[in-house]
Amino acid sequence: MRGVVMHAPGDVRVEDREDPTILEPTDAVVRLTATCICGSDLWPYRGAEPVDHQFMGHEYVGVVEQVGDAVREIRVGDFVVGSFWASDNTCEICRSGYQAYCVHRVLMGTIGTQAEKVRVPLADGTLVATPGQPDADLVPSLLAASDVLGTGWFAAVAAEAGPGKTVAVVGDGAVGLLGVLAAKQLGAERIIAMSRHADRQALARRFGATDVVEERGEAGVAAIKALTGGLGAHSVIEAVGTQESMMQAIHSARPGGHVGFVGVSHDVSLPGEDMFMAGIHLHGGPAPVRRFLPELIRLIWDREIDPGQVFDLTLPLEDAAKGYEAMDQRRATKVLLTV
Amino acid sequence: MRGVVMHAPGDVRVEDREDPTILEPTDAVVRLTATCICGSDLWPYRGAEPVDHQFMGHEYVGVVEQVGDAVREIRVGDFVVGSFWASDNTCEICRSGYQAYCVHRVLMGTIGTQAEKVRVPLADGTLVATPGQPDADLVPSLLAASDVLGTGWFAAVAAEAGPGKTVAVVGDGAVGLLGVLAAKQLGAERIIAMSRHADRQALARRFGATDVVEERGEAGVAAIKALTGGLGAHSVIEAVGTQESMMQAIHSARPGGHVGFVGVSHDVSLPGEDMFMAGIHLHGGPAPVRRFLPELIRLIWDREIDPGQVFDLTLPLEDAAKGYEAMDQRRATKVLLTV
Repeated sequence: MRGVVMHAPGDVRVEDREDPTILEPTDAVVRLTATCICGSDLWPYRGAEPVDHQFMGHEYVGVVEQVGDAVREIRVGDFVVGSFWASDNTCEICRSGYQAYCVHRVLMGTIGTQAEKVRVPLADGTLVATPGQPDADLVPSLLAASDVLGTGWFAAVAAEAGPGKTVAVVGDGAVGLLGVLAAKQLGAERIIAMSRHADRQALARRFGATDVVEERGEAGVAAIKALTGGLGAHSVIEAVGTQESMMQAIHSARPGGHVGFVGVSHDVSLPGEDMFMAGIHLHGGPAPVRRFLPELIRLIWDREIDPGQVFDLTLPLEDAAKGYEAMDQRRATKVLLTV
Repeated sequence: MRGVVMHAPGDVRVEDREDPTILEPTDAVVRLTATCICGSDLWPYRGAEPVDHQFMGHEYVGVVEQVGDAVREIRVGDFVVGSFWASDNTCEICRSGYQAYCVHRVLMGTIGTQAEKVRVPLADGTLVATPGQPDADLVPSLLAASDVLGTGWFAAVAAEAGPGKTVAVVGDGAVGLLGVLAAKQLGAERIIAMSRHADRQALARRFGATDVVEERGEAGVAAIKALTGGLGAHSVIEAVGTQESMMQAIHSARPGGHVGFVGVSHDVSLPGEDMFMAGIHLHGGPAPVRRFLPELIRLIWDREIDPGQVFDLTLPLEDAAKGYEAMDQRRATKVLLTV
């Protein structure tokens, strides 16, 4: 089969790779319909992280082609969506809703879903089948559920977005934008998108943002305070992962407020005194997307949400290298690869 | 009146000070029955923090002697307990339960309650009257409610201690010990006190600890993991405030677990990657004691809890210097000063 291989920073190629097979009786092999490139794939691409695995990609939707002997729920022919962490969904940690920390978890990024097919471990725990074969226009949204929507949703839940709440969103990438959508779905009263890009501001407004703040850092904090009677937001979604964005998020929340952070941390250090004096709740990390998949699939299937709008460039898998380039150069927010 | 004055690190004296008077119509003047020395008073005493205010103390119980014209609820003659933050208890932040961040808050430590009398700002919002004049044996427990009990209680609530939960407590000072008591009251199934002092271990067990772990740092984390099937505690109370204790608390919690931290942070820096990968909830800071005072007073009044046991040395106010010495030299956990 064909699949992406990252040889070195900036060097992404689509090559012949071994077809995946069932290795464990709990595995499934999925023929992908679509996959995509994640903002986190850019870290090794840019040399900001080591290229510690060559097969890339962790987002995926497709049709089950084969299942191991121990797979009970998922069937050959099912159209499935999975999380970027494979999880058994039965251990104590999974049952508490933290499948990204399953005691048997496997990171799909190390297997590499930017390919024609992929082996999915713990298929019954990891995959969720859609009610039938989806219409083509639903595929981007279902793919978004696999990571960026699930991650934005988790951030909004972690930030306790809900009725009567003012939610500030730090970061206007795909996850931040879908954090806006999630906050809206969760019933937030007011949603402040922090963005300085006109196209992303426009999408944020379509997803439910009521206000846009262009300032960053301390000026951004001051703008949020000004919009909230000096108190700060009830809920803040952090979807960047830098020192500035984390401090902006923490200082934008009111005492007793909630910060949900999902931007992968890079060189972040949180000063203890700031954390002590802020009086906020902080929760985040890799999103337990599997917790939310059944609900997200239902919302997409019923056409209540359209998160697929975050994909602003679609390319065939063979052109994956162009997709990396476009995201690296910020010509695209999020690239979908058709298989 | 007589009151404590800290002239310099290590130099605490009891001197004649001006009698407090009503300055604002919302003030009350309280004649203290008892006050005490806080672990946080030791920071300036030891020179680890500047002596930025000379009048010391922020814990207090006593009888109201005078009230301002705008005081409606609190009456002359009431026996009252107050928090270490004066708060109006009516602003949006107070109403959300975060009175320590009241938009009009005043830190009682800057007024100084280690004295015969004290002016309490925002009396109606800050003070809670007991159902009547307390028996003498209840006074230490009511005084504990003013800070150490309220703070330990907040830590347990922030850590979401409750039925079915395993709670680990980092720190065996008065706050940590009362965190044990709070976790017990909140219905925790298992409470692991982290302590290497036999007398404090014994008190922790009296307050409800089911297990004691003597190890610290990574060894302490390993011990907690060993007691929890490798997963970590559901809830962790942090009541120290150092880098080691914070990391011990964070790493002792399971993914999705809750850390409540109330140790005043000193030179703490939380690594972003650790925070990201831990998947915990973190909440803490100065405790909004006022939120809990009515319930805590009821439990004490009904003799359901006896938090006053944390006081292991009682001295007259005149001997405050000896109390500081005893706590500094760890001959006492918590010193009560009778007035």
